[in-house]
Amino acid sequence: MDPRIQEHAEILVDWSAQVNPYDNVIVDVGEGAHDLGVAVAKELGKRDANILPLYSSSQIQRSYLGHHSGDFEKDPQYIKTLFEQADIYLRLSGTYNSAEIADIQQDVRQSYNRSQEGIRDSRLQTDWVTTIHPTRALAQQAGMAYEAYQDFVYNAINRDWESLANEMANMKEILDQGDMVHIEKEDTDLTMSISNRTAVNSAASVRYDSHNLPSGEVFTAPTDPEGEIYFDVPMVLNGERVEDVHLTFSNGEVVDYRAERNESVLEEIITTDPGAKRLGELGIGMNRGIDRFTNNITFDEKMNQTIHLALGNAYASCVPSDEQRNKSAVHVDMITDMSNNATLAVDGEIIQRNGTFKWENGFEHEEK
Amino acid sequence: MDPRIQEHAEILVDWSAQVNPYDNVIVDVGEGAHDLGVAVAKELGKRDANILPLYSSSQIQRSYLGHHSGDFEKDPQYIKTLFEQADIYLRLSGTYNSAEIADIQQDVRQSYNRSQEGIRDSRLQTDWVTTIHPTRALAQQAGMAYEAYQDFVYNAINRDWESLANEMANMKEILDQGDMVHIEKEDTDLTMSISNRTAVNSAASVRYDSHNLPSGEVFTAPTDPEGEIYFDVPMVLNGERVEDVHLTFSNGEVVDYRAERNESVLEEIITTDPGAKRLGELGIGMNRGIDRFTNNITFDEKMNQTIHLALGNAYASCVPSDEQRNKSAVHVDMITDMSNNATLAVDGEIIQRNGTFKWENGFEHEEK
Repeated sequence: MDPRIQEHAEILVDWSAQVNPYDNVIVDVGEGAHDLGVAVAKELGKRDANILPLYSSSQIQRSYLGHHSGDFEKDPQYIKTLFEQADIYLRLSGTYNSAEIADIQQDVRQSYNRSQEGIRDSRLQTDWVTTIHPTRALAQQAGMAYEAYQDFVYNAINRDWESLANEMANMKEILDQGDMVHIEKEDTDLTMSISNRTAVNSAASVRYDSHNLPSGEVFTAPTDPEGEIYFDVPMVLNGERVEDVHLTFSNGEVVDYRAERNESVLEEIITTDPGAKRLGELGIGMNRGIDRFTNNITFDEKMNQTIHLALGNAYASCVPSDEQRNKSAVHVDMITDMSNNATLAVDGEIIQRNGTFKWENGFEHEEK
Repeated sequence: MDPRIQEHAEILVDWSAQVNPYDNVIVDVGEGAHDLGVAVAKELGKRDANILPLYSSSQIQRSYLGHHSGDFEKDPQYIKTLFEQADIYLRLSGTYNSAEIADIQQDVRQSYNRSQEGIRDSRLQTDWVTTIHPTRALAQQAGMAYEAYQDFVYNAINRDWESLANEMANMKEILDQGDMVHIEKEDTDLTMSISNRTAVNSAASVRYDSHNLPSGEVFTAPTDPEGEIYFDVPMVLNGERVEDVHLTFSNGEVVDYRAERNESVLEEIITTDPGAKRLGELGIGMNRGIDRFTNNITFDEKMNQTIHLALGNAYASCVPSDEQRNKSAVHVDMITDMSNNATLAVDGEIIQRNGTFKWENGFEHEEK
């Protein structure tokens, strides 16, 4: 077995999920993630944790949903109780075909998802972590050869997370203490308030309330955006590729928008509800192992030298309990490249210039 | 997909497990049984049942057990409750290597199995069914080409079970009403009592308290064997192949035994405890789809034109509640071929001659 798989499993179990002896662990093995499942089982065995493997297959899901009447039982008790009694839920995703449920009627999918809301809530009460095992299907989605994609994935996952967590703590401190963020680049001059908000140091560990491996971003919940921004990294929204999005904000809301491709999808999102016109998130990508767009938001939004904003729902953890967070049925991340002719400033001080943070070598040099 | 897989799934869900709408179903998908899992999901969807897929992989099990300290928690509650709340448990076995846990220390395996006893009991309280999806590993174990093995498996499973259940009801009636069984063939002249015992019509359906698909045997719990019997079908006991077993019974107990190969394994079994010298089961194989020994007891003991006896533990369902059943730590099935120069008689009447039952065409002809 590729030794990088075992390293991945060790990081997942030790750093991300912080597994202890006799923890009740559910390992949800994706149909293409068998090898990672074997590696995770070894790490759980080494720690004397308990194990229950589940099986996630989009082919099984399609087969089930495609023949069901659509009248689903709400939160079947045997599944809900399972998650209520589990301590840790590890989702090892890894599909053989990311389009497998493309032909399942949308209302059936929605009805199924609604029927599982209580189960999802119970799952989110555990120390859950989602990670990805590289498959040929995911390599194809990324437009990469399988071997190159494996290199990419392990470069993003098998990192010194403690060191990155310490570096990201700098960024969290800056955002926590700051009041105003200012982003400038091509077609971009945007300010937003982060006053009284708490940033999350998303360091791929439940210790940081960070539940994805890889992670590597610091995010907060900004308000009152003013100005315009250009998102030059392509994105997939509602299954469609949307490119070159321009947004203009005034009085905290989107007042103008355009996209070079699939603008109608963008329109659909922005008009979902009032909260969809406001910001839900400002995220700073800091994972230096992620050096390219791979058509997978788990990796894309953590990419070093990028910033993302989300329209829609804001995370409660960023907003003080006595304040209202932005609420919406959508949370749509859009990414902009900060590596060229771009600055990120907080309260007038430049924090990142052309992709280099102020604490990095070469920051002064970039000033020229 | 091979249409025989869908037929298998339909028999499993409809005939064997008798699934109803909103039943809470666990589908335990073996690492080599994915395709059957997809087919079963379709049948469960069609019936609006609930579904939770588990994953059974001997590679994951080896990885876990091989690195655990061996100090297992007794019946982890999250797993026990899951089975307690489930209505139906479908085990789709199908391994990629039946020797995968060969190098796990026996005491670790035993300690793990003991730690799971309560979970196993909860699982047996559901309407559980175990079935087999053909893999290349199982074909190899059977000494067969994969395609030929698939033909063999589906011939054994995809049958008219209702018709076989009706035929087996004849045999059950004969055994229920009979007092004395007499088996004669080469090196064999054995009598045993079945007085006051209840036979099980094992027709591969929970309706008949029969939990294997395929099944196709009628079995009861005989007592007081007298005489000798020759088991000419090879068997695997404790992982070793044992061939050409001869047993002699007197006063209901084994008084002499020999085997042409691995006799010491036979000795180990017989000397386990006092119950291991007595009979636990007499089974009549009646599945005409099973025409050869494939090194897999699930198929072998159901083989048409064979009879098997088990030394050791007897099933409670065969013994009236006011009588003591034979108890032992072992239950070891041994098979004898009845197709040539062999008779099975009950109370002096020949029921089967040279593999042909008395209600079959050609029975009279065999008399010559």
